[in-house]
Amino acid sequence: MVMRYVPAMHIVIVGGGFGGLLAARGLSGMKDARITLIDRTNHHLFQPLLYQVAMAGLSPADIAVPIRAVLHNQKNVAVRFAEVERVDLAGKRLHTTLGEEPYDKLIIAAGAVNSYFGHDAQWAQAAPGLKSLDDAVEIRKRVLLALELAEQEPDEATRKALLTFVVIGGGPTGVELAGALSELSRYIVARDFRRITYGQIRVILVEGGPAVLSTFKADLQQSAVEQLHGLGVEVRTSTKVLDINENAVITDQDTIVAHTVLWGAGVKAAPLAATLGVPLDRAGRIVVGADLHPVGYPDVFIVGDIAACTDAKGKPVPGVAPSAMQMGKFAARQIKKGLNEQFSYKDKGSLATIGRSAAVAQFGQFGFGGFIAWLMWMAIHILFLVGFRNRYVVMFQWMWYYLSFERGARLITQHSVAPRQPAPLDPGH
Amino acid sequence: MVMRYVPAMHIVIVGGGFGGLLAARGLSGMKDARITLIDRTNHHLFQPLLYQVAMAGLSPADIAVPIRAVLHNQKNVAVRFAEVERVDLAGKRLHTTLGEEPYDKLIIAAGAVNSYFGHDAQWAQAAPGLKSLDDAVEIRKRVLLALELAEQEPDEATRKALLTFVVIGGGPTGVELAGALSELSRYIVARDFRRITYGQIRVILVEGGPAVLSTFKADLQQSAVEQLHGLGVEVRTSTKVLDINENAVITDQDTIVAHTVLWGAGVKAAPLAATLGVPLDRAGRIVVGADLHPVGYPDVFIVGDIAACTDAKGKPVPGVAPSAMQMGKFAARQIKKGLNEQFSYKDKGSLATIGRSAAVAQFGQFGFGGFIAWLMWMAIHILFLVGFRNRYVVMFQWMWYYLSFERGARLITQHSVAPRQPAPLDPGH
Repeated sequence: MVMRYVPAMHIVIVGGGFGGLLAARGLSGMKDARITLIDRTNHHLFQPLLYQVAMAGLSPADIAVPIRAVLHNQKNVAVRFAEVERVDLAGKRLHTTLGEEPYDKLIIAAGAVNSYFGHDAQWAQAAPGLKSLDDAVEIRKRVLLALELAEQEPDEATRKALLTFVVIGGGPTGVELAGALSELSRYIVARDFRRITYGQIRVILVEGGPAVLSTFKADLQQSAVEQLHGLGVEVRTSTKVLDINENAVITDQDTIVAHTVLWGAGVKAAPLAATLGVPLDRAGRIVVGADLHPVGYPDVFIVGDIAACTDAKGKPVPGVAPSAMQMGKFAARQIKKGLNEQFSYKDKGSLATIGRSAAVAQFGQFGFGGFIAWLMWMAIHILFLVGFRNRYVVMFQWMWYYLSFERGARLITQHSVAPRQPAPLDPGH
Repeated sequence: MVMRYVPAMHIVIVGGGFGGLLAARGLSGMKDARITLIDRTNHHLFQPLLYQVAMAGLSPADIAVPIRAVLHNQKNVAVRFAEVERVDLAGKRLHTTLGEEPYDKLIIAAGAVNSYFGHDAQWAQAAPGLKSLDDAVEIRKRVLLALELAEQEPDEATRKALLTFVVIGGGPTGVELAGALSELSRYIVARDFRRITYGQIRVILVEGGPAVLSTFKADLQQSAVEQLHGLGVEVRTSTKVLDINENAVITDQDTIVAHTVLWGAGVKAAPLAATLGVPLDRAGRIVVGADLHPVGYPDVFIVGDIAACTDAKGKPVPGVAPSAMQMGKFAARQIKKGLNEQFSYKDKGSLATIGRSAAVAQFGQFGFGGFIAWLMWMAIHILFLVGFRNRYVVMFQWMWYYLSFERGARLITQHSVAPRQPAPLDPGH
């Protein structure tokens, strides 16, 4: 009898977000395959709750787990902590910070980064976005610092600027940031501060389009605006941002003097997409058909936010977590079973949270807002939290601060000791 | 009838640690007094559990609460987030980053910082100490990064260095760091890593004196060493550190090639002490008698780790949390009641934790080690945790990872994406 050696198929997954993780899990139990999952961070991040870290409700560890820990039982996966610098499609290999990595099959799920519509260099520093744990901790620091500085600021105009918060972008991220920010700042100022009052705080949500939550139905958009008003957020739609600097947001309507500006207005594909040499859309995403392959590369699957995918129904797949999960699973199934199917996105409904007891939910033609939507949002998000411990800790903390109004993670960290007072404002620039 | 206006006494407290916080609480309800508590961070830190943050067991927010939140019910206290740069004893005023602050009574509780015995500039970078949340997160990052780098390191000698951890200092901080580090690294390597094995990890505790835990009795010191051995820690006593660089620790015995070095060998007074112009001891601490006053300044009290105090019994007061708490309370009582008593330190016993189910306890002549000491240590520390929510979250997390061995906070954060492999080691320098 002659033993023939068949070398294992090497499947490489780039990215440990929803898409990459679901792909890896979908490949579990696959024989004659070894899988390498590469990520530039050591953790999977539950992005839907990232705004809670930014708003001091949760700690980073509550919404993130080491990728190694998530996959430790799946023996055919090796996790590599490295950055992929370039994809060589013709040579079937990746260039990474750990050297070259050849592949037989490749799943790219590298996700998205903040996009400032061509103003990255100028605006990113003045208006941090919310894509990573570091972003969230930075935003938390800025918000808490602004309140501290306002408390001890003698100059009226400067104090006013310190107590004005602008959130740019009326999508789900902007809406949840604005709602949570208004709740957080008003509550802790009312309770813990002595010189500033919660009535002095302004939270302004700026949206360029005619409505917030543009993917929701009109009555839910209206409900969201009412719920935002109820939380004390000023909503300005049809207002285009022309410039942002450290003292102000300049729009086509007026100039808003504000010390703290947060960015929720847009993302673009991770820069890795541009290294493939295949067609990209305007947001830098890799254009793929319903088979998820870039044209001419059937061994490569593009998954999640980095893909500009038109599915089997001819519809564009939205850049949301359920898409990434469905695409990751789909890619794994094609590889594992040797299939060549067409991907169809299944829309299971949309939920957007606004604040304490405030949310909107839309399922096909059916939609509602308020407390029930919020309960639903919470239940679903806790259910999907990766990692057993996190799920219970988060549930416990939410119960706790729903009942007590307390926020547990109000820490100014990262080499931050008390700063000097800011220089007097010059909002013109 | 003639109304006479008596201006409120202005009491300033520098520092929101155990000493400062207990002083502020001791002054609650005092009439005709307004209190200003100044701290350079926005949070009170429960330092005894800081090593748990460094070892990925707890999140920063689990052991820290905003000082404003702790004192929010005490209406005679204003909290200021500022750094005190200089104390002008003659002029009875402080120079702070927010300007001048005059006082009638002053309580200085500014604590201690890491001390590298005159080698601060060279050693601080190579061997971080453990005094702040930022320190703890930095140590966590270094330890987790070393394991990640070792997993993907092809060179044998470099991998060995990456898996060698040196803890300098055999006091309570060094002992708990070494024990927890050995537990953490062996457990997660055994479960989540593929190429390195837990047998390759070395944790070496280096102490210059003849024994670890020098303030404990000899049999407890011996018990501690045995418990450390049980956790896989090598203990080297009577070993003096001559130099530290990023690749090695050079001792008077040999050179230990190690990528990660942690410092638990000593602290000195906060630099503020030197600005008073009064006598200091060798550790930079302000020399005070049992009245806690620097000689000639009866309106000033020096409290906690920044004080070199000889108490009413003629004994030096140790630099531990209970001393700071007792001194803070004492100072508040003297001011509130207009007394001029002598402070006596009450030693209620000492506890040092070593690891899971491992600790030593000493109460006067009575001492024991092992599981019971550990349970006691845990109960006392949870009991003293400031802030209601934190207490329950910490209890929950400890129960959880005692049962599951899981560590929840294993995040590499603070702008840390995957690094390139380190250069080959050159341990000579």
